[in-house]
Amino acid sequence: MNWLLPEYLADALPLEAAAIERRRRAVLDLFRVHGYELVMPPLIEYLDSLLTGSGQDLKLRTFKLVDQVSGRTLGVRADITPQVARIDAHLLNREGVTRLCYCDSVLHTLPASISASREPIQIGAELYGHAGDEADREVIRLMAAALAAAGAPASRIDLGHVGIFRALAEAAGLDAEAIDAALSLLQGKDVPGLEGFCAGLAEPYRAAFLRLPEFYGGAEVLDRAARELPRLPAIDAALATLRALAAAMPDLPLSFDLADLRGYHYHNGVVFAAYHPGCAGAVALGGRYDGAGQAFGRARPATGFSLDLRVAVQLAPASAAAGGILAPYADGDAALQREIAALRGAGEVVVELLPGQPLPEGPVCDRRLVARNGQWLIEAITV
Amino acid sequence: MNWLLPEYLADALPLEAAAIERRRRAVLDLFRVHGYELVMPPLIEYLDSLLTGSGQDLKLRTFKLVDQVSGRTLGVRADITPQVARIDAHLLNREGVTRLCYCDSVLHTLPASISASREPIQIGAELYGHAGDEADREVIRLMAAALAAAGAPASRIDLGHVGIFRALAEAAGLDAEAIDAALSLLQGKDVPGLEGFCAGLAEPYRAAFLRLPEFYGGAEVLDRAARELPRLPAIDAALATLRALAAAMPDLPLSFDLADLRGYHYHNGVVFAAYHPGCAGAVALGGRYDGAGQAFGRARPATGFSLDLRVAVQLAPASAAAGGILAPYADGDAALQREIAALRGAGEVVVELLPGQPLPEGPVCDRRLVARNGQWLIEAITV
Repeated sequence: MNWLLPEYLADALPLEAAAIERRRRAVLDLFRVHGYELVMPPLIEYLDSLLTGSGQDLKLRTFKLVDQVSGRTLGVRADITPQVARIDAHLLNREGVTRLCYCDSVLHTLPASISASREPIQIGAELYGHAGDEADREVIRLMAAALAAAGAPASRIDLGHVGIFRALAEAAGLDAEAIDAALSLLQGKDVPGLEGFCAGLAEPYRAAFLRLPEFYGGAEVLDRAARELPRLPAIDAALATLRALAAAMPDLPLSFDLADLRGYHYHNGVVFAAYHPGCAGAVALGGRYDGAGQAFGRARPATGFSLDLRVAVQLAPASAAAGGILAPYADGDAALQREIAALRGAGEVVVELLPGQPLPEGPVCDRRLVARNGQWLIEAITV
Repeated sequence: MNWLLPEYLADALPLEAAAIERRRRAVLDLFRVHGYELVMPPLIEYLDSLLTGSGQDLKLRTFKLVDQVSGRTLGVRADITPQVARIDAHLLNREGVTRLCYCDSVLHTLPASISASREPIQIGAELYGHAGDEADREVIRLMAAALAAAGAPASRIDLGHVGIFRALAEAAGLDAEAIDAALSLLQGKDVPGLEGFCAGLAEPYRAAFLRLPEFYGGAEVLDRAARELPRLPAIDAALATLRALAAAMPDLPLSFDLADLRGYHYHNGVVFAAYHPGCAGAVALGGRYDGAGQAFGRARPATGFSLDLRVAVQLAPASAAAGGILAPYADGDAALQREIAALRGAGEVVVELLPGQPLPEGPVCDRRLVARNGQWLIEAITV
């Protein structure tokens, strides 16, 4: 049973692999024309570097290895974002705006969900060096365009802002442990648990925490939140940012989810999550994470997003590959060899039939090269 | 010092990453038009599956992990070839010729040489199901074309055949231990060691083993080998195969190295190694390995090659990227937004200047969009 793969891992066979490759190129080309420069950080790094600034969750998801060269512990990256922040902060060391993108496999010790792969292909883009919401707008638009290029256009993009929860937690005097408890209750949408947790809090914070999961829906959510949440400057600022983003992008299917606190320890401003009808979870996630480069010696404003190309391709409509051309074995026939080379040069798939072999089952061929009156012609293959 | 990477690992920064991506596409496109179908096996597998049929060398080079799902030992692939053989043997299960290709990172616990990366990007092609030397010819030609597409055309392609050593070892009655000793002496070109080893062997085998490293050079090597090696049927057959290959490809820079026994435990026929003036070792390696799918339930004739895309790109001449176009911040300016979208649609890199930001240091821009008489025009940027 040597051919069995571990659970939550799979080969991409020709049809799927071709689709992944095609979508990969489409998304990377999109990034390129928007001025995002491709980088390729290594699959493994010292564990400390991979986990700087990240939460417990990433630590548990990261495979550990021993480096035979240094004796230190290495991690197989479970997320490329911290690596790209390291490149921006330390290696490029530019003063102004830097736009970077990436596409590569990451590994997870356990799948993120029962249907997830342990080897997502993470493709994403990051914009460093600009604190204004113009950067978030650019990145949200790019996320929408990337999903369309990947074949899984977003039906809904939820915006949130971790500053709201942070301001409430600070005003209510929650310590780190209480914050983690509240986060996990909110993310699990555990209303009874949340009620128990809030029982000991003073008003108006008790009511505010309890109401957070209700701030979910269209633009009216922002008005309600402004009326019903405590008037804290950080909350006012967060709501104003969300309002400005929505006003600037009326053409995108934006809505709001003020209780979306995924990556709370990492993000510090607006966060966004894109959804597709075919997928229970988000198909793309992003947000602002100013200061991500701090651990690498240089805090920089940053905003970006990423998606799993495997998931997007599964959601994408299958596109029939163009059929290939079957050619007889060309050895010693210079005219046929030239013909085949010219067709391949023009991008056609030409499959050469090796001597004594039956028709290949590989790339589907709908045409063949045949000799007619001393000339090589292409004819349709009729069944 | 969180930004330090482990030794023999490096980030590919924008210039190098763009070159890798460009060459990757060129080589994969070449494979595609030749009818090779892309597959993407996972980064990790059960260790047993990864190491089937391979030598001790691969075992030592493979990072091991514990699977939290099954409790079994996983390996991070150090070579993609056995994974592709598994896909051919078990998953596709086709009767006739199957052509597959791949491009992905592999990891090595220790670098193959002092200048090697521990994360090569292995790109290669495999042809299954045809035992005739027409398949080897196709693959050798494809290897030469792939190196040219990767920017590192071969200055020399050495052909060898493991059947010669195998026939001598069998006729001389060497056991497995003696075979390994002889292989390591031959691969290290350790002539004194080889003399000591051969002292106990009977003639004509003693002389034959000692002479193997001398069979290195042009076509005359085959004549000399035919005269000077013992007349064993397997040796005659191997020399005839090499002669036929050379005769069929007079346009390639072919030479011979009958002591090239890399991958001896894996290969069973003709082997080939391509060289480039800028690189001490081979830039591409390949050969025939019939029976590689046996461990997966189906032995199939197989021949193929692979190369490290990182090495090829380092050898390739740098090509200056086309310059981008700098655009003013376009928010609220529909005409400018349309102009930018049209340029990007045509493949141009357009970098939008965010409000209050200095000129970006990212993609080099040699032109800019400027408004002249109510129209957006592209002007050269003069320093």
